[in-house]
This record gives sequence, C-alpha cells and structure tokens, in this order.
Amino acid sequence: MSQSSKGKVAIVGSGLIGQFWAMIFAGGEYEVTIYDIVPEQVSKVLNNVQANLSKYEREGCLRGKLSAANQTQLIRGSSDIESCLKDAIYVQECVPESVDLKRKVFDQLDAFITEDMVLATSSSCLGVSLFAGNMKNKHRTLVAHPVNPPYFVPLVEIVPGPWTSKDAVEKTQKILESVGQSPVTLSKEVPGFALNRIQYSIINECWNMYKDGLLSAADIDKVMVDGLGPRYAFIGPLETMHLNADGIVDYCERYAQGAFNVCQTMNPPPILYDADTAKDILSEIGKSIPVSEVPSRRVWRDNRLAALSALKTKLKEKIE
Amino acid sequence: MSQSSKGKVAIVGSGLIGQFWAMIFAGGEYEVTIYDIVPEQVSKVLNNVQANLSKYEREGCLRGKLSAANQTQLIRGSSDIESCLKDAIYVQECVPESVDLKRKVFDQLDAFITEDMVLATSSSCLGVSLFAGNMKNKHRTLVAHPVNPPYFVPLVEIVPGPWTSKDAVEKTQKILESVGQSPVTLSKEVPGFALNRIQYSIINECWNMYKDGLLSAADIDKVMVDGLGPRYAFIGPLETMHLNADGIVDYCERYAQGAFNVCQTMNPPPILYDADTAKDILSEIGKSIPVSEVPSRRVWRDNRLAALSALKTKLKEKIE
Repeated sequence: MSQSSKGKVAIVGSGLIGQFWAMIFAGGEYEVTIYDIVPEQVSKVLNNVQANLSKYEREGCLRGKLSAANQTQLIRGSSDIESCLKDAIYVQECVPESVDLKRKVFDQLDAFITEDMVLATSSSCLGVSLFAGNMKNKHRTLVAHPVNPPYFVPLVEIVPGPWTSKDAVEKTQKILESVGQSPVTLSKEVPGFALNRIQYSIINECWNMYKDGLLSAADIDKVMVDGLGPRYAFIGPLETMHLNADGIVDYCERYAQGAFNVCQTMNPPPILYDADTAKDILSEIGKSIPVSEVPSRRVWRDNRLAALSALKTKLKEKIE
Repeated sequence: MSQSSKGKVAIVGSGLIGQFWAMIFAGGEYEVTIYDIVPEQVSKVLNNVQANLSKYEREGCLRGKLSAANQTQLIRGSSDIESCLKDAIYVQECVPESVDLKRKVFDQLDAFITEDMVLATSSSCLGVSLFAGNMKNKHRTLVAHPVNPPYFVPLVEIVPGPWTSKDAVEKTQKILESVGQSPVTLSKEVPGFALNRIQYSIINECWNMYKDGLLSAADIDKVMVDGLGPRYAFIGPLETMHLNADGIVDYCERYAQGAFNVCQTMNPPPILYDADTAKDILSEIGKSIPVSEVPSRRVWRDNRLAALSALKTKLKEKIE
C-alpha cells in the first residue's frame, strides 16, 4: 500500500457499478483493487476506468483533488480473491442480484475478512440476512446500496442485517463520507429499503392517476420534472413541509386535515404495474423515446445528472 | 393596448403570487394590469415588481427577450375592476384560498367576462365547481394552479370544472406555453389535483418510515435530495421506469412483482400528520433550520431553484 493513500478498498465484481465504485474510491484517494474471475475482463475494465476518468477530467467533472492519471494509478485489477482482499479496510461487492450467487460469493470471501474490515453488498433489494447467515464474519456484513449513476448521484443506503456490528456501520458511514458519497442509515432491513419505498409510493399514485384517465403520461412526468422535482434536488419532503409554513408543526396544523381528505380519495396501490397499462403508456412515451433510443436517452440523463452535481458542488462552495 | 404586445392579461389580487404572474406575463410580452382594491397597495406592488425585475436582470435570470425596463412598462396597476378586465384575453385570479371569497370575486368579475376571455383561479386546492356555479360565464372558468415560486418553477396545473369549455382549456394552454410556463391538463377536478396527490403520497410513506424508526428525518430528506431528487429534476417517474429497463413494458415484466411485494409491507396513509410526530421531527430539523430561520431558508431554496432553472434553460439551448 502506498504511503499517500488513505487505505485499501476491494471491489468484488467488475460490472458498471463496480467500475463506478472503483472511480469513486480512487477519487477519494483510496487504493483500489477490483476483482474479476476472468483476467481478460480485468484488463478490459482497467482500460474502461482509465478512459472514463480522463473523460471526466476533460469535461471538468472529475471527483477529488488528484489528476485522472494519479487516480488511475491507484486502481489495480486482480483475479485472485485472497490478494484482492489482503489489507483492505473495506470490501464492496457488486455481483448480479441473486441470493444464491451472493451467498456463494460471501461464503468465499468469509475466510479473508478480518475484524476491522467491512464487507458491503451493493444490492438494491437483498438484505444480508438473506445470504450471510452462515458466515463466521457475518457481523462485518451490511448493505451499501448506491444509486445509478453513483459517480453523480451520491446517496448510499446503509442497511445493517440483524447481526451487523455498530462498528461496521459507523466505519462504512465514515468511509463513504470521506469519498463524498452521502450515506443514510436504516435501523433495520425492510423490503425496498427507503429509496424504493418512496419511489414505489410515487409510481403507485401516478399509475392510478393514469389508469383513471386523469392526465396523460407526458403530463404526469411534467408534474414531477417542472413542478416537484426541482425542489427535491435541493430539499427533501420533510424540509419542504417545514418551509411551506412557519415550520413543520405549523404545516401540520394548517394542512394535515386537507391532506388527509385528499388521501382518503386515493385508490389502493395497484395490483402489479400491469402489462396492459404499461403498453398504453409505452404507446405515448415511445413516440418521443422509442425503446431503441433508451440507451442514448440514458446518456442524456447522465449528462444532466453530472451538470446538476457540478451545480450543487458550486453552490456549496459559494457558502463555505 | 400597445401595438407591440401580444394582448392584455388581467391579474386580480396583488399578493406574492399575483406579482409573480405579472412578471411572467410581462416577460412573455403581454400587457398586464394588476388589480387591488386598495390604491396604495397597487403602487407598492408596482414598485416591488420593478425592483424584482431589475434584480433578476442584474442576476441574469430575467425571463423573456425584453429589458427589465421594457417589461416594467408593460405592467400597470388598477383599483377599478372594470377597467382592469377591459380588453383582457386572460384573467388570473389570485386572492386568498377561501371558497366564500373566491365566490364573491368570481360573481363580481362575471359581468365583465366576454366570450373569448378565460377566467383562471390560482387556487391550489379549490376547483371552480365549488364557487363558480352561479356565474353566467362559468364555462370560461378553470383552475390554473402555479407552483411556488412560479417564476423559476414552470408547472401550472390546468383543472377544468364540469362546465368549462374546451376552448377555454386550449386557450389557457396556449397562453401559458407562450410565456414559458409548463401547463399540464387534468381531465376533471380531483382533490389535491395531480401535484399534491403525488406530494402527499411521498409524505405518507416518509411519515410512516419516520414513525417506524426506520431512519432519521435528516436521512429521509437525504434519500430524496441526494438520491431520487436529482433524477426528478429532469425525468418523471414514468420515464424513470422506461429508462431503468429496456422500456417501461420490460420494466414491469422485470420489477412489478418485486415492487408489489414491497408495497404489501407499506402501512396505510397516516391518520393525519399528527402533532406529536411533527414535534419530534421539528426537534431534529429545527437544529439546522430553526423556525425563526425558515424565511431565510426559503430565500436559499429560491436561489437554488433559480440556478437550476438557468441550468435547464442552458441545457435545452445546447440541443436546439
């Protein structure tokens, strides 16, 4: 481990999310080893990462204080799991979303986990209680769920399992904060964690309004993009209540009854997002974004998220 | 009416929202007359508007192509309702949110409404069915609900009453689009319109998660601000589904069952946003934003909304 780095981080799994994690930790001046079982995949991934870091540098959205070249030097590849984990203080697993696969990988990693390491899974819906139960070191495991694309969207949901030690949670919070991510910590495992519980609540009401013929799919999306969304890029739902009156207590006195009356007229969550409605919506959305253009629209979205991330950083620096 | 303007708009009610509407329509090159029953209030308001337009010009966020001085010239005041409405093509009412008051004002305006005028209320929750029923010209009435601050958040919810003519709806869409607002059109009146139905769905789940001790108030807000919110500034909930898979039909095939399972574990909407929970949340939020600092935090928020609005405009121009 070089003297200048803050410590070593191991990334297990070299897909898109694994590559993002590698760049984020290198930006935060950690030494990174990224693991893949296939050696050719490892070198492909290192080339990708190098190209992306250079691109971010050219576009002015590279994270951290080091140059892209110096960050690239912090990232190594490995197809040997033992040497990948050796001396690491933090392990971020990002293999595909399957209980069986996660169990297999976690069991394999168990032998190399030490008392001050954390083993975090990037899983978006599987808590460690589902697959880490047989491990000797299960108290060092937890979920650290990023949001796509994590390089420009900093939230990470930390979800401890029933056996996760307080120390592992606190260490994860610290490490993620030190690289500029924004960790939140759930007190326990719940289905959907917090982000998807909120996201599905939104989709449920939008789905019901669409099925009720209340407004078009394009107009539903506009309500968010041109109405609620800009706020939510800067203030959350609770602070919104706080600011829309003289504090949140005053908000509830003034508006809780009205809100309750509105909620009484809401339909229950849809029984699945049904295929017929999905096809109806597609016949509308597909006119502006055909399925074949979804990949390029994702690039469009990510460019905007990068620009917003840069704006938010600029506004923060202005204050400090 | 001057030759150069696009027509005359009447603003009835000179509070904050009325002043925003005046500036928006002047930016769109309409001639504006803003009404208040108290002549002193009228001159105060005109001074305010002039000062704000100059400020926006200095800060580079003035809307439209005319200078602040030229826009100011387009705005007049009046404390005579007949002359305020004379020759107007569109009337935007923004008096306080009371059924009795709205009924009184609409009945008074009725005598001056012509067949090609639209009479829109800025109401955030009262449909015209509640107070326009006695009017001769009720088919020319509808809701045009803006979002605060409308100068930087373009959404307007158009909500027709049971008697509103198609022509009045279409004319409103056209006029609002011509000044750079982003109108959506509901097919009928529903409690909360669309925006608050979505907003309350979000608050409901956040409230339940907080009461369940799942995560702190600050962390709930972070899930939005650092996770979901940045997306929603650019793409709506339906497009998000579309992009998170190979189109929305594929999304539903892959994720609807999982989402449904998560939703099965959600509690029903809270019975009111109760005062005890509100006080708990305040004891946390109040540390960073005491109630006494809510007004200055609103300025902080609006500055960010202005900056995001400028960024979105810049990104749009880049494409065209």
